[in-house]
Amino acid sequence: MTSQMRSHYCGLVTESLMGQSVSLCGWVNRRRDHGGVIFIDLRDREGYVQVVCDPDRADMFTTAEGVRNEFCVQIKGLVRARPEGTVNEALKSGKIEVLCHELIVLNPSVTPPFQLDDDNLSETTRLTHRVLDLRRPYMQNNLMLRYRVAMETRKFLDANGFIDIETPMLTKSTPEGARDYLVPSRVNEGMFFALPQSPQLFKQLLMVAGFDRYYQITKCFRDEDLRADRQPEFTQIDIETSFMGEQDIRDMFQGMISNIFKTVLATDLGEFPVMTYADAMHRFGSDKPDLRVNLEFTELTDVMGDVDFKVFSAPATTPGGRVVALRVPGGSEMSRGEIDGYTEFVKIYGAKGLAWIKVNDVSKGRDGLQSPIVKNIHDAAVAEILKRTGAQNGDIIFFGADKAKIVNDSIGALRLKVGLSAFGKKSGVFTAGWKPLWVVDFPMFEYDEGGQRWSAVHHPFTAPKDGHEDWMDTDPGKCISKAYDMVLNGWELGGGSVRIHRADVQSKVFDALKIGPEEAQEKFGFLLDALQYGAPPHGGLAFGLDRIVTMMTGAESIRDVIAFPKTQRAQCLLTHAPSPVDEKQLKELHIRLRTTQPA
Amino acid sequence: MTSQMRSHYCGLVTESLMGQSVSLCGWVNRRRDHGGVIFIDLRDREGYVQVVCDPDRADMFTTAEGVRNEFCVQIKGLVRARPEGTVNEALKSGKIEVLCHELIVLNPSVTPPFQLDDDNLSETTRLTHRVLDLRRPYMQNNLMLRYRVAMETRKFLDANGFIDIETPMLTKSTPEGARDYLVPSRVNEGMFFALPQSPQLFKQLLMVAGFDRYYQITKCFRDEDLRADRQPEFTQIDIETSFMGEQDIRDMFQGMISNIFKTVLATDLGEFPVMTYADAMHRFGSDKPDLRVNLEFTELTDVMGDVDFKVFSAPATTPGGRVVALRVPGGSEMSRGEIDGYTEFVKIYGAKGLAWIKVNDVSKGRDGLQSPIVKNIHDAAVAEILKRTGAQNGDIIFFGADKAKIVNDSIGALRLKVGLSAFGKKSGVFTAGWKPLWVVDFPMFEYDEGGQRWSAVHHPFTAPKDGHEDWMDTDPGKCISKAYDMVLNGWELGGGSVRIHRADVQSKVFDALKIGPEEAQEKFGFLLDALQYGAPPHGGLAFGLDRIVTMMTGAESIRDVIAFPKTQRAQCLLTHAPSPVDEKQLKELHIRLRTTQPA
Repeated sequence: MTSQMRSHYCGLVTESLMGQSVSLCGWVNRRRDHGGVIFIDLRDREGYVQVVCDPDRADMFTTAEGVRNEFCVQIKGLVRARPEGTVNEALKSGKIEVLCHELIVLNPSVTPPFQLDDDNLSETTRLTHRVLDLRRPYMQNNLMLRYRVAMETRKFLDANGFIDIETPMLTKSTPEGARDYLVPSRVNEGMFFALPQSPQLFKQLLMVAGFDRYYQITKCFRDEDLRADRQPEFTQIDIETSFMGEQDIRDMFQGMISNIFKTVLATDLGEFPVMTYADAMHRFGSDKPDLRVNLEFTELTDVMGDVDFKVFSAPATTPGGRVVALRVPGGSEMSRGEIDGYTEFVKIYGAKGLAWIKVNDVSKGRDGLQSPIVKNIHDAAVAEILKRTGAQNGDIIFFGADKAKIVNDSIGALRLKVGLSAFGKKSGVFTAGWKPLWVVDFPMFEYDEGGQRWSAVHHPFTAPKDGHEDWMDTDPGKCISKAYDMVLNGWELGGGSVRIHRADVQSKVFDALKIGPEEAQEKFGFLLDALQYGAPPHGGLAFGLDRIVTMMTGAESIRDVIAFPKTQRAQCLLTHAPSPVDEKQLKELHIRLRTTQPA
Repeated sequence: MTSQMRSHYCGLVTESLMGQSVSLCGWVNRRRDHGGVIFIDLRDREGYVQVVCDPDRADMFTTAEGVRNEFCVQIKGLVRARPEGTVNEALKSGKIEVLCHELIVLNPSVTPPFQLDDDNLSETTRLTHRVLDLRRPYMQNNLMLRYRVAMETRKFLDANGFIDIETPMLTKSTPEGARDYLVPSRVNEGMFFALPQSPQLFKQLLMVAGFDRYYQITKCFRDEDLRADRQPEFTQIDIETSFMGEQDIRDMFQGMISNIFKTVLATDLGEFPVMTYADAMHRFGSDKPDLRVNLEFTELTDVMGDVDFKVFSAPATTPGGRVVALRVPGGSEMSRGEIDGYTEFVKIYGAKGLAWIKVNDVSKGRDGLQSPIVKNIHDAAVAEILKRTGAQNGDIIFFGADKAKIVNDSIGALRLKVGLSAFGKKSGVFTAGWKPLWVVDFPMFEYDEGGQRWSAVHHPFTAPKDGHEDWMDTDPGKCISKAYDMVLNGWELGGGSVRIHRADVQSKVFDALKIGPEEAQEKFGFLLDALQYGAPPHGGLAFGLDRIVTMMTGAESIRDVIAFPKTQRAQCLLTHAPSPVDEKQLKELHIRLRTTQPA
C-alpha cells in the first residue's frame, strides 16, 4: 500500500521493520509531553503507532510542539524497539515505536466538537458530525468488516459461476407490498418511476433470459415508518439461479454464509439444522427461533379443555386457540417483582396476563407447587403439565393461553426475554455463540381476516411443493411452499424460494389471491409473458447485508454499519437531506406541493 | 457448476468428456430432422452443443419430435465424437455431440415473436421483448464481459487496499450541474431527496474520515435529454484515495485499466502517453483526441494575418481567433463530391465553409497546387503552409479559420470523419487498435460569456497546481488544475483530479466562482466543515463502466451492455415504467400533478 507519501500503514508497523526507515501518514490521536520528549499516537485506518519526537532535532520538535489532536501529519523516522516495560500487547505495533526524523503538518485541525474516544455521544451528535464519528476505530472496523463480507460474498459467488448483473433503479411502481419511493418523470408528464423494493421480477426475467446464475449486491428502498433496525435504503445480497432445486440452493448458500463467517470471523458455523415452519411455531412460537435460548414450548391445548379455569379452557376449546407452557429450569428463584415485570412484558404482545407455577418439590405433586392458578386445575391436568414439561425442582413454568398468534408472539417473546436476561445467561438457559438454522416448508397462503381473502406468505411467485398446486382452488391453507429462511440467533439473515416457472401455475396463484387476469396482466404482464417462452426452473434468495454485518460486528444499531445513514425521521443530519427544492424544479417535473395553490 | 439437474454447461462440453455421461439443461436453439434422426442444437449461456436423438429410444424420440425452438429441456446422454466431416471448428463443443438417452421438456415455449438470430430487429422490438433479446449470444456475451470487467476492477482495487463503501442513494439536491432526479419525502412534508449525480462529496468526506482508499461501482443519475450514448441511470467506477499525488494516482489507474484489458481481452495497452490539455487542443482541437487517426493540426494563425483573404486574415488578427491546416496524406484523390460532403459536415460545428488545397506537385510551388483559395494567399504564406504541413504530392490540405472554439470543434470533427472513413482506413490515415492516453493540466476555470463569470472546468473541488492558487483572484484563466482524463480511441473513459484539502483554498475557489460564503455554506457546508478537521491530501477519479464495456465489446450502443435500459424517451418498454400512480400515493407525498386542481 505504498505511495510516494507513505511506506506503511501506521497500524501495520511491527517489529519485522525494526531498524528500517518508514514514512507514515495519519492523524494525531494523542500528543503527550513526557520527560522533555513528545510522544504522538499516530492513527490511520489500520491502527496506531507510537511516534517519539526528541528535542535534538529542533525544527521537528518545534513542529511537534504545535500539533494537536486530529492534525493530519506525515512523519518519517526509524522503527526501533520500545524501551522495556512500555510494550503494549494490545496493539499490533505495540512492541515498537518510530523515532521521528521529519514531521510535516499536512493539514491542521480546529478542536473537534467531542473527544473521539468518548463512548457516550448521542446519536444526534454522531450523525451531525459523522465525518469525525467515522474516524473512530469502532466505525472504521465496522465498515471495513462490511467490505470484507461483501467481497468474500462476491468471491464465493464468482467461484460458483454467478454473475453480477445490474437491474434498474428507476423502475415501475407496484402498489402492493411496502410503500414505494416515487420519482416524477420530467419527460413523461404525470408519470412516475419507483425505486425498487427488490429486484425480484428482474432477477426472474434474467433467469428466463438464460443467464443461469445471477447476483447483485444492491440498494433496495421501502418508504415505511422506520423502526430501530430499518433504513429507507438498505442493501440486499440478491441471488437467483436456474436448474437448481430447493436442496441444491440451501446447500450452496449455507456454504456461502459459512464461508463468510470462516474467512471474516474465523468462525465455523457447523451444520445448519433444518426445521419446518410448523415445527418452529410449535416449539418456539416463532419462524425465526433463537436457538441460543434453550427453552421450548410445551403444548397443552389438548389438556386444558376441561379444567375449571376459563383462561385456559376457553382457548383450548376454541378453534384457533392455543395453550402452552414454557418451563424455565432454575426459574423458581425469580422474585415476585421479576414475574410482575414479565407479566407486563407479555401484555405488549396482546396477552392478558401471565400464569405461572413454581416447582418446589415435584415429588409432592400439587402440594409441591407454588402458583396463583394451580388450584383451578384438576389433578390429571397438573400431572400432565409436570410430565410433559419434564419439570424439575427449582423450575418455574409460565403459561400462555389465547388465540394462537397471541400465545406464539407473547410466549415466544418471553422465551427470548428470559433467555437474554442476566438470569438466563448465568443459569445456562442461554448459550452464547452462533446458532444458525433453516426454516422451511412455509405455508403458501395466510388468511387475511381484515381483507377476508388469502394473501401470499412470501410473494406470489413462490412455487408450491410438488402436488400442492391442486389444493390452491380447494384448500389454500393446506398448500406448502418451497420457501426457506436462513435464521441466525433469532434474526432472519435471508430468505427465498423456488419460483413458479410455469405460466399456468402462476395463474392459479393469482386466482387464489383473487388477482384477476386483467390486474395480473397490468402489474406483472411482462413476467407472465416471459414465462410463456420456456422459462427454466429457478429459485433464489436474498440476504440483508446491513443485518449480517450488524450481527457480525456486534454493532448496537444497523446505523453503525452504514457510512451515512438516515435518522428515524428519514433525515441525513450531515447533509440536511431531504431539503426544499426550487419551484422551477417542481415545474419541470409537472408537480406542485399540495400546500401551494395553482398559479 | 454442477447441480442435481446439470453436470456441465452445454457450451463447455468438449472432447475431454468423450465417452462420459452428461446431464445438460438449456434451450432448443434449432431442431433439424435429418435422415430419420433428430438433431437439437442445445444452447445455454456458455454456448451450444449438438444433441442427437436416435429413433431407437422411442419415448425419447417422440418427445424430441415435439420440441420446438426455445423449449427449455434437460437431456441426459453420452458424449461422442462427431462423424468425420461434421466437425464445427467455430464451437468449443464442435468436435463432439451428445447422444441423447433421456429428454425432459422442463417448459415448452410458444413461438417467439422473432427469430433469435435475426440481426435486423428494430430497437423497439428488442426492448419490448427484452427477455428474448437477452437470450441472444451477442447480449449474453456483452453482459458476461461487463461482469468480468467489474469483477476484475474489484479484484485489482482489493489487492491495492481500496475498500468498497456504499454512499446514499437518497441524498441532497444541489441545483448546479445537471438536472437532479427528485424523490419527494413523505415523512418530511415539502422536502425532496435527490438521486446522486455522483458520490463526489461523500467520497471526499470518506477521505476526511480516514478510510484512505475508497471505491464503489455505483449508479449515478442525471435527468438530461438523452443522446445516443446516455442513460438516465449509469454506472460509475468511483474511486478516491488519500496521500497519493497526481502521478501516483495516474500510475495506479493506468495499471488498473491495463489489467482489465489484459485479463478480459488479453490485450496489452502499453504505456499511456501523457498530453497536456493545451497540447491536445493545439494538435487535435480536442481534449479527447482519437490517436488512431494519424492527422494533426498545423498552426497557421501567426501566418495568415496579412493575407488578402478575409476568411483567414480576420480570425488570425482577432483575439480568440485561430487558423489551422489539416493535411491529409493521399487525400488529393478525394472527389469534389466528397469535399462538398465534408464542407456540409463542418457546418454542423459552426464553420462557415471548408477551404482546401490539393497538392499535385509540391516542387512547382503555387503552380503545383489546385485550390479555390490559393490565389488569395501570398507566396510567403503559401510556402509556409507547405513547409509547416510537410505537404507531399497527392495530399489534400483542409483549413479551418474562425473563433478558436469553432476551428477546434469543426476541424477536430473533420479529422475524425476523414480518419474513420473508408478512405482513412484504406490509406493508412487510420490505424486500428487501442490508443490510450492521459490528458492533463486542464485549466481550472473557463469564462462563461453568457453568465459573464468564471466557471469550473471540472468541479469546484479540483485542486490548482502548486503555486497557481495565487492567480485565482488576479487571473483565473491562468490557473491550471491537477485534473486528468483517461482517453481511449477518442472516448473519455474516466477522469478525476487531486482535490482541494485545505479550507482556505476551497474558499478562494468559491470566491473566484462568485459563490458567496452563505451560498457555499448552504450547499457545501458539510464539506467545508470537514476540511477544518485535518482533511488529508486526497484525489481520485471515476470511470464510466457502461462506456468501457461498450468499447470493449464493440457494441453498437450503450444500451447493448445494459440488461434493462431506457429508451431515448426515458421509458422501459418491457415494464412500462414510468407509469401513472394512485392519487393516494401522491397525497401521502404531499404533491399533486400540476394538471389537477386542488381538492
